[in-house]
Order: sequence, then C-alpha cells, then structure tokens
Amino acid sequence: MASKSAVSLSVIRRLPRYYRYLGVLKKKGITRISSRELSERMGLTASQIRQDLNCFGGFGQQGYGYNVESLQEEIANILGLRNPVPTIQIGVGNLGKAIASHLDFSRSGFEMVGLFDSNPALVGKTVAGFEILADGELETFCAKHHPQTAFLCVPEKAAKELVKRLVDCGVRSFWNFSSYDLALYYDHVVVENVHLMDNLMTLRYQIQEAGITEESV
Amino acid sequence: MASKSAVSLSVIRRLPRYYRYLGVLKKKGITRISSRELSERMGLTASQIRQDLNCFGGFGQQGYGYNVESLQEEIANILGLRNPVPTIQIGVGNLGKAIASHLDFSRSGFEMVGLFDSNPALVGKTVAGFEILADGELETFCAKHHPQTAFLCVPEKAAKELVKRLVDCGVRSFWNFSSYDLALYYDHVVVENVHLMDNLMTLRYQIQEAGITEESV
Repeated sequence: MASKSAVSLSVIRRLPRYYRYLGVLKKKGITRISSRELSERMGLTASQIRQDLNCFGGFGQQGYGYNVESLQEEIANILGLRNPVPTIQIGVGNLGKAIASHLDFSRSGFEMVGLFDSNPALVGKTVAGFEILADGELETFCAKHHPQTAFLCVPEKAAKELVKRLVDCGVRSFWNFSSYDLALYYDHVVVENVHLMDNLMTLRYQIQEAGITEESV
Repeated sequence: MASKSAVSLSVIRRLPRYYRYLGVLKKKGITRISSRELSERMGLTASQIRQDLNCFGGFGQQGYGYNVESLQEEIANILGLRNPVPTIQIGVGNLGKAIASHLDFSRSGFEMVGLFDSNPALVGKTVAGFEILADGELETFCAKHHPQTAFLCVPEKAAKELVKRLVDCGVRSFWNFSSYDLALYYDHVVVENVHLMDNLMTLRYQIQEAGITEESV
C-alpha cells in the first residue's frame, strides 16, 4: 500500500461507507461488483469510486469489477479495523450508555477497556459488561492499561480538564461528543468530533432551502 | 440575502461552527472581531472565513471586523434557527433518550412535538416532558400535528418501514441515526445522517496514520 499518507481525508471519510455496502453485498451472496453497479447502489459516480479506490493502488480489474470480499478486507486493512486499540470512555449518562452498549467497537478497530464517570450514583454500576469507575481512578488505570483512545461523552465544561489529564496519561486520540474543540489546543492528538447540534443546524438550513416549511413559516 | 441557493453544503456545514464561536465571544463580552482573530480561534484561515461569509453578502467592514452579535444573528437567520419546525422522534432507547433529553433543539430551529417507540415497556413513560406514544399512533398524530421532521433513533431494520410511513404522513426531513441510507430511495426529502460507526472508522484510520499505535500493533 504505497503513498497512503497522500490520501485526502475526504476520500478516507468515504471508505467506511464502501466498507458497509460491501458488507451488505457479501451478506446477499454477491461476490463481484462493477464500479458502475457499486456507484448506483451508493449514489456516487463510477469514476468517483474508481478514483477513490485507485488512491490505494486500485483493486479492480478492468472489465471484471471488484471482488467484494477482498475489497472489503483491503478497506478494513487500510482503515486499521483488524487491529483494535485499547479504549476508555468517560461519561456514562444516557448518551454514553447508548454508545457503550449499542455500538460494536471491535468492528471499528477499538477495544473498550474501561468506563468512567464522575457521578457517584453511576460509579460501581455495570454497563456493557464493565463496572463504571470513578474518574479519580483515571491516572492509576491508564498507568496500568495504557489506553490510546478516549471516547468523551461529557459536557463541554468537564471536557477541558479531562482532556488535559488524559493527554498527560498518554492518550493521543479522542472521539469527542462534547463541544470542547480540543484539536485547537493539542496539535499532537487526533480527534473526531461528533457535533450533533451542528449537524442539526445543517439539517435546518436544508429544510429551509428545500422550501419544505414554505407554508408554515 | 441574495443567491443563497448557490452556496455549497461545505460552506453551510461551517456556519454552525461560526455560530457557536460567536456565541462564546458574546458571552465573554466581545462585541467586535476581525476575520484574522476569528480564524485563529477557529483554526481556519482568515481568507476562508471572509470567503464563507461573502457567500451571503458579507457582513464585515474592511478594517473594522465583524459585529459579533449581528453576525451571529445573521447566521441564525440564514440557517433558519429562529423558525422552529415541528418535529417528532421515533425511538426512545438509550440514544433516543439522550437526544430527547439533552439537546436544546429550540436553539437549532426544531420544536419537539412527540416521542414514539415500538417497545411496550417504554410507551406511556415520560421523557423530556413527553409521554412516549406507541408507534401505531403515528398516522393519527401526524394528521393532527403535521410534524415536518423526524429524528430516527431506531435500528436499520425498523427504519425502512418507518420512513415509508412517515413520508406517507408528509414528513419530508430526517435526522437519521440508523444505518438505513434513506436518501438513496427518496429524492424529495432532506436527510442528515449521523453514522457513528463511519466516524469511528475514520478516527481509527487517523490513529494509524499518526503512528500512534506503532508500538502496540
């Protein structure tokens, strides 16, 4: 896999979608697919798909299409899905509980190793097979288990201090549900932000643009 | 506000961030800011910010910067945040409960009018001030209250049939947490997808790229 680092993040962001669709095809027993068919199912152009996959050397053969299983496996390798990184989660309120209980991290290359919360009413309870630890135990836990990733399911005001402590503990990657923009303050960490309110505002704009609310506004 | 429809979705997706940052500045009592200062705080270039805001006619004066409050208000108007659209949510499990309880929709231009779930154990319970209704009541409810948006906090297998019913009821916009790619099947609706697993896979790739797992993999 040559020149991976030249691949733009917008291409990378499409890979999980390819991965998902290829999984659907595999379940249906489809073993081979052309970029044209794949594009129709995914709402992209065939040339977009060929371009994207060419970034990684290209896996198709002209006229023969892609082997569904091996393309999916290649994408898994590119994304690193087969090498789970030890992960902790801070915050096990409703959102945190949903995240910890309902997402299959192992399929995404993460292995949960511990859940933390600052709420004494939650500490000691079991969620997704883990006993929730007090966030005061973070440092001891990290020294022992070396988590590399933290899922932050806490409010913005708690996030700032927590991130500092986590970075001091050697955590270098964050899945951030808070509105604290940590990437601005730490340039040696990687972050994926889930800004639900931003997403919602973008939806609101599109509703207006589409004229859906014409009658009611 | 001329030529709004020519604005690309990637510009639109940055507006909520501007909106958030301007809110932070306002809280701090800052009334005026230059594109340079704004860019430093947001990790964008000053010319990017000027370009983005020029799409809507531009609100700054050369050499004087932007008026924080009026710029924020203009962005609110562009996004439609001041005209809440009636909204229902389907699915009040952990994720749905977090969404319904902890997000301030009214600030994003949505007004929750009803919560639904198919689980008899949840129907009748109160979440965020709403008594959860059985999803069998959707049609009657929609005929009466005309919700325009639905938040879908249900698994993929439930989403397909639900979307069909909701579209039949006149719902034309969706905030979709399921992995059902409804935009492929309905071209007259607007959709914002929250694909948490895709997000997570993108994070996994970046961890690998940054060499964070070098020692452990």
